[in-house]
Amino acid sequence: MFEAAELGQRLGDKEYQKRVKALRGELLDAQYKLMQAGFSVILVIAGDDRSGRHETINALHEWMDPRFLEANAYGPPSDDEMARPFFWRYWRDLPPKGKIGIYLRDWATVSIAQRMDRVIDDNRMEQRVYFINRFEKELVQDGALIIKCWLHLSRDELKSRLKKHAKNPQKYWRVSQGDERILKKYKSLGHLTEKVLRLTNTAEAPWHIIESTDDNYRNLRVGEILLAALNEKLASAHAKERRTLRKSLHNGNPQTILDTIDLSQKLPEDAYRRKLDKLQSKCGRLFDAAQTKGVSSTMVFEGWDAAGKGGVIRRITATMDAGFYRVVPISAPNDEAKARHYLWRFWKNLPRRGQSVIFDRSWYGRVLVERVEGLAMPAEWQRAYYEINDFEEQMTTHGLVLNKFWLHIDADEQLRRFKERESTPHKRFKIGPEDYRNRKHWDDYELATNEMIKYTSTEYAPWHLIAANCKRNARIEVLKQVALSLEEALDKQ
Amino acid sequence: MFEAAELGQRLGDKEYQKRVKALRGELLDAQYKLMQAGFSVILVIAGDDRSGRHETINALHEWMDPRFLEANAYGPPSDDEMARPFFWRYWRDLPPKGKIGIYLRDWATVSIAQRMDRVIDDNRMEQRVYFINRFEKELVQDGALIIKCWLHLSRDELKSRLKKHAKNPQKYWRVSQGDERILKKYKSLGHLTEKVLRLTNTAEAPWHIIESTDDNYRNLRVGEILLAALNEKLASAHAKERRTLRKSLHNGNPQTILDTIDLSQKLPEDAYRRKLDKLQSKCGRLFDAAQTKGVSSTMVFEGWDAAGKGGVIRRITATMDAGFYRVVPISAPNDEAKARHYLWRFWKNLPRRGQSVIFDRSWYGRVLVERVEGLAMPAEWQRAYYEINDFEEQMTTHGLVLNKFWLHIDADEQLRRFKERESTPHKRFKIGPEDYRNRKHWDDYELATNEMIKYTSTEYAPWHLIAANCKRNARIEVLKQVALSLEEALDKQ
Repeated sequence: MFEAAELGQRLGDKEYQKRVKALRGELLDAQYKLMQAGFSVILVIAGDDRSGRHETINALHEWMDPRFLEANAYGPPSDDEMARPFFWRYWRDLPPKGKIGIYLRDWATVSIAQRMDRVIDDNRMEQRVYFINRFEKELVQDGALIIKCWLHLSRDELKSRLKKHAKNPQKYWRVSQGDERILKKYKSLGHLTEKVLRLTNTAEAPWHIIESTDDNYRNLRVGEILLAALNEKLASAHAKERRTLRKSLHNGNPQTILDTIDLSQKLPEDAYRRKLDKLQSKCGRLFDAAQTKGVSSTMVFEGWDAAGKGGVIRRITATMDAGFYRVVPISAPNDEAKARHYLWRFWKNLPRRGQSVIFDRSWYGRVLVERVEGLAMPAEWQRAYYEINDFEEQMTTHGLVLNKFWLHIDADEQLRRFKERESTPHKRFKIGPEDYRNRKHWDDYELATNEMIKYTSTEYAPWHLIAANCKRNARIEVLKQVALSLEEALDKQ
Repeated sequence: MFEAAELGQRLGDKEYQKRVKALRGELLDAQYKLMQAGFSVILVIAGDDRSGRHETINALHEWMDPRFLEANAYGPPSDDEMARPFFWRYWRDLPPKGKIGIYLRDWATVSIAQRMDRVIDDNRMEQRVYFINRFEKELVQDGALIIKCWLHLSRDELKSRLKKHAKNPQKYWRVSQGDERILKKYKSLGHLTEKVLRLTNTAEAPWHIIESTDDNYRNLRVGEILLAALNEKLASAHAKERRTLRKSLHNGNPQTILDTIDLSQKLPEDAYRRKLDKLQSKCGRLFDAAQTKGVSSTMVFEGWDAAGKGGVIRRITATMDAGFYRVVPISAPNDEAKARHYLWRFWKNLPRRGQSVIFDRSWYGRVLVERVEGLAMPAEWQRAYYEINDFEEQMTTHGLVLNKFWLHIDADEQLRRFKERESTPHKRFKIGPEDYRNRKHWDDYELATNEMIKYTSTEYAPWHLIAANCKRNARIEVLKQVALSLEEALDKQ
């Protein structure tokens, strides 16, 4: 794989200057077109040439408008990063549309290093490769352009650099232990790298392997590759009409999984009080233990308007230590979120070890409201099932406790609660014309929910369907499941 | 101080329900008015009643529209938080205008705990009190409303709660070791608390001490205090005309400190190359050491348009490990920043231990462009000198290395560079009509800069005035100072 990058490519200073001059103008042009075109660019600068990666990034900053470049380089993970799934920090730092994010020590590079250091084994590495390909594919499907460059140094070149360093460390201070380590393990590292590069060399995000011995040649090649990819994508990108027509999903087969929920369950007040006290005290102790043992948990609440999500959530948070949880209410995305992949704002909010996050509505909006209201294109919400499963698999693989609740009420009960809200002064803010409008699409939501459950109720993250016509029943059922899942996770510790 | 909160205040359930019902409606009204009024509210819930703080926050969430409440509770600091000045996490989490941020384990509470645990000594505590008062004052001056509630429990009440817990831990699981510790140290903790509360009981942000024995009484009091404060502030708040008239600052005394900079200094190419190599290799080694030893540094670059900030910054970053620095270009604030105190976005970007952040333009925009262009009110930029000094004192107190550079060129040199930019294709993006417009206010900027240096060149954070008519000279001078400051900081380790 690397033979083609050991040809001894060089470029004289004069020729370099001339070609850079032309390239700069074209890169700037492409940058300004990019701002209009509204997609984001992810440029990975990886490879065994440690100082070369550096020089290249400096050159790109000199050539382009740095206001629209974002360099993301990763040192050893902070404990905030360690406490979350591997891809958390990469999601967090995604560039917005119109900008170029440059990545140093990217997901593939760090994975290779972790495998070399035996932080992960072969199985985890295999899973990692799968996640890498999924990650890149999801971003590309969302419209991003991914360009991955691997800067290659031959063994001889690496040796000669270390020799130079030994003779004149003042001048060659950039050469360091890192390079020595690479040289020492050159062969095994090479095998591993070749394998990872081959497995992550996808149609969506191919690797460019670049001979890195000569600074001029390397910098220019990276610049040219970036320019070509940008121009190609700019030529094919055209503004898409974002809003699709709202179509009724109702196809004459109204029987859904929701119909299997027995809504007649009722819990009298005194039994409720007794159970609530017991369960809350149990959850309180379990959350304390989770906090101590570093078990984090995420709870997702979806359900019909007025199904009682807020009330259930307050019964849970009452048992938690306020320093260790956060309730994240999800409504329409703001500009920052709109400029990125729709999962970005959920990744950003994942809890660190020992902490909990409760989502009041969630990423499932993609396949519910966005689907029903025509806010997402069919291709977008269709692939979302896969994306969501992938996201949740990364969470649970990381050891996070994930609970997903659908609070179910029927249309009559909803109407009764709407009326009650309207007649109670302090509840009026909870009701508006939009709520009545949504009722009209009840059947569509029902079908969308049915498919959501069908495609995203997985072994590692099943849906819990809660009968919520009786609020007391819903609260007890949810608390039971929360307690159960925490107990299981703590037992495994 | 606490005697008035040991009167045995109680409230029957019936009376409570009645008063809560009225309060809820009014709180919701006030919340909606707040969204229009455009100020933020900071509500501190502190005190020895650990479970009471909790109950109160739950009650507030039940009474108000939770979409416009943000609860911020702080557990033990994460290493990301430890690696930065004490107030970093509180700045980071400031609520935007129109919202209410609720704070549990606030700055005063955590300071008291740190003093009790001997994490800080009396001197640091004194300094902390000073910083607390400054912090609150700056937010209030920026338009925020701060309400601080201390929930007090008598010693007898605490004792009786612990007794109940011992008898029935299932029911009273909220009572825990934390409470036991409070009881054990009740007297000394009381003395310390009283002192801190007294010293932070300011006109801008007074403490409300609330008897907390009875849940009903306490919850209602907090709600009433919040409502009263909100209504008072809403009555006095009226939309301010944000933009003030741009006035020439020129007062016939054009002699400034900038005139003392000798712009004739020139550095020939070969001497420059030699010095640059030496200094870059030195800085490279120093940044490596800083990284290892956990020394963080912040560099601020201000100066005339076209003074060469970008070029200097690239000469510094070329010596750094890309995983450990970030360049933050500062232009007009976005909506998220505009909804908060102007220092928010700078606090947010402070480096963690071992890392560096370079600000290309900075918080000094407040007293430069915002002053000259009339974007800040006179009272705003005038108090900014003090706010900035305070901000920088917190950084340097934390051990961070702070370098502030003013790159100076004269008006002729600037014009020459503008022309050069216009005639070089790849530099054209760096120049526009705005740059020429700014030139017209040269004298005003000169005077504003003079005052900036006068008021913010402090012992702990002096300005470095760099002669930059010769770019080579500027780069060498900056690198020298960077190396010197790192050496000094590392020597102290």
